[in-house]
Amino acid sequence: MHKKLLIPGPTEVSQEILSEQSRYLIGHREKAFSDLYGGIKSKITKFFELSDSYYTSVTTSSGSLWFDIVGRSIVKEKALVCVNGAFSSRFAKTIQSCGKKVDIIEVDWGKAIKTSMVAEKLESEKYDTVVMCHNESSTGVRNPIYEVGDLIRSTYPNILFAVDSVSSMAGDKIIPNNIGCDVIFASSQKCFALPPGLCIGIVSDRAIKRANNVSNRGSYTDLVNIFDFEKKNQTPFTPNISLLYALDKRLNLLIKETYAHVYERHLEMAKCTRDWAKTHFELFPEPGFESVTLTCIKNTLEKNVKELIEKLALRGFMISNGYGMLKEKTFRIGHMGEWNSIEVKKVLDIIDDIWGF
Amino acid sequence: MHKKLLIPGPTEVSQEILSEQSRYLIGHREKAFSDLYGGIKSKITKFFELSDSYYTSVTTSSGSLWFDIVGRSIVKEKALVCVNGAFSSRFAKTIQSCGKKVDIIEVDWGKAIKTSMVAEKLESEKYDTVVMCHNESSTGVRNPIYEVGDLIRSTYPNILFAVDSVSSMAGDKIIPNNIGCDVIFASSQKCFALPPGLCIGIVSDRAIKRANNVSNRGSYTDLVNIFDFEKKNQTPFTPNISLLYALDKRLNLLIKETYAHVYERHLEMAKCTRDWAKTHFELFPEPGFESVTLTCIKNTLEKNVKELIEKLALRGFMISNGYGMLKEKTFRIGHMGEWNSIEVKKVLDIIDDIWGF
Repeated sequence: MHKKLLIPGPTEVSQEILSEQSRYLIGHREKAFSDLYGGIKSKITKFFELSDSYYTSVTTSSGSLWFDIVGRSIVKEKALVCVNGAFSSRFAKTIQSCGKKVDIIEVDWGKAIKTSMVAEKLESEKYDTVVMCHNESSTGVRNPIYEVGDLIRSTYPNILFAVDSVSSMAGDKIIPNNIGCDVIFASSQKCFALPPGLCIGIVSDRAIKRANNVSNRGSYTDLVNIFDFEKKNQTPFTPNISLLYALDKRLNLLIKETYAHVYERHLEMAKCTRDWAKTHFELFPEPGFESVTLTCIKNTLEKNVKELIEKLALRGFMISNGYGMLKEKTFRIGHMGEWNSIEVKKVLDIIDDIWGF
Repeated sequence: MHKKLLIPGPTEVSQEILSEQSRYLIGHREKAFSDLYGGIKSKITKFFELSDSYYTSVTTSSGSLWFDIVGRSIVKEKALVCVNGAFSSRFAKTIQSCGKKVDIIEVDWGKAIKTSMVAEKLESEKYDTVVMCHNESSTGVRNPIYEVGDLIRSTYPNILFAVDSVSSMAGDKIIPNNIGCDVIFASSQKCFALPPGLCIGIVSDRAIKRANNVSNRGSYTDLVNIFDFEKKNQTPFTPNISLLYALDKRLNLLIKETYAHVYERHLEMAKCTRDWAKTHFELFPEPGFESVTLTCIKNTLEKNVKELIEKLALRGFMISNGYGMLKEKTFRIGHMGEWNSIEVKKVLDIIDDIWGF
């Protein structure tokens, strides 16, 4: 039995999109490919309102490749990384394992990083890069990237700002120009509601300039090499053409819906899920910093989450237990991509039924 | 109009395989995923006759990621890289750009690297890794990996042997145990006849041991991290589930056909293409070192290849011009994956018709 996915990713993908992957392949050095890929990048430029100083690349990889791209091509000597969950922690470790220095601002899981914390660190120490995860999928916390971007742009012109937007871009409102970020990226299997296998990366001209001055960038993680090929609407390495067909279709649907409506729909799903959660439990994230694309719920009633997931599977749906050490202490409902609040409400009703609420 | 692909990759993929990608997604931390992925790895073990000292990972990436994996996780200080074409050259540059020392054995494009050349270098200098591209897609040359593997295994127990088998594995005969290689990898869009987006990597226990002693491996390029997750039949990063469905199906078909027959079929296609080529032109590779999966033909008649490709497109097929500086001087016919010699012969007949042979 197929279980519809309300996990923090991969999210549910419709047959309409999945079947785009059944189209015949074309050569990746053909004009037909450059037309497809150039079109995709134009649509991304339009949807995310990119100015001329931003460039897009779609890499054939998981989103995590971009942790390495930031570590290899952006961080020159020392980065400040904001850590409040599993994914931001992994981002910090990746940069360290690229041989770069890392200072960490760390708060308890469930808490958000505040702009004042970043300001304080930037006053006391010299960094070339600040790294923040917008939407911590492990805790459901949404960090204040717009404020931090403002701070950096207004006061530290030489610092680059790299944002992990893996599980928020195209669901939550992400306008890179307004954030003032230099690198921002998202995985295909989250709000874009595609299968995993692509990462949508948007970088500023400052990022490419920086990369030119960072040594030992490798190849697969080399922003300079990637964006050299982007000029001719190609990728340096054979890309996942099947998934690019699906991304192209998805972008058509997103543009048709408009970002305003897409964002509104995600806000509605978040409200509906939070309202339900607060009726029975508490939200795990600190108030005011709740994710718009997934809700992490504190299991205050000490319900058996594992059992819920098993029973829900028999009814055709799948949500997530808490991440790592938060298992059974929290549980997570992903509401991103193709879902809407009416459908999410139906799933919450089934949970009510299973738990006898 | 769909053009059937006889280029050196991506190769033609049947609807039967493409439509596997339309199956609904599952969570990548679910048991259902581990069953799928564990099954894939068992089938790879069976097909490539892997002994207990070999491990498999399928990465969500182009094959080129593994140039970086070798550069980041395998080469400790200094590698000897055999270069006789565009891809082996890129492999050498990638390792250098990972900050490692590289010595190169370079011969003219079209020539093969001989085992004696490797032996000579290994006698005169200390290396921790030898790198060779089995099947140079840019020139159609097949390098003697079995002989070089023998040399290294018999005389240099501390040297690891990394092989780019991107366009040969599962078409040409690749038995890692018999090669004695420590890292070998292939892209999904070549002989596996799948869309691009996955790389099948096979490593020895010696390779994992080495990686543990190499610093600054990053994350996406960290063999230790990758194989930690492999133990539970998972990948560290969200994998391309759609393409794994297709790979699973492909492995069933390959196992059913048997590797002996798959190899025989590729030899037949190579023979048929070479015979045709030699009737009108000359083969570009040095005699005795011709690729089994693609034929690179010296354009001795100074035919207009670009025009041929355009005319062939109208008849529903696509072959490749020469690579880079070899454009118009050579042209390439890929015969790998799902093709057979009868179908290849039909395409050669159409070329005869177009060129008036």
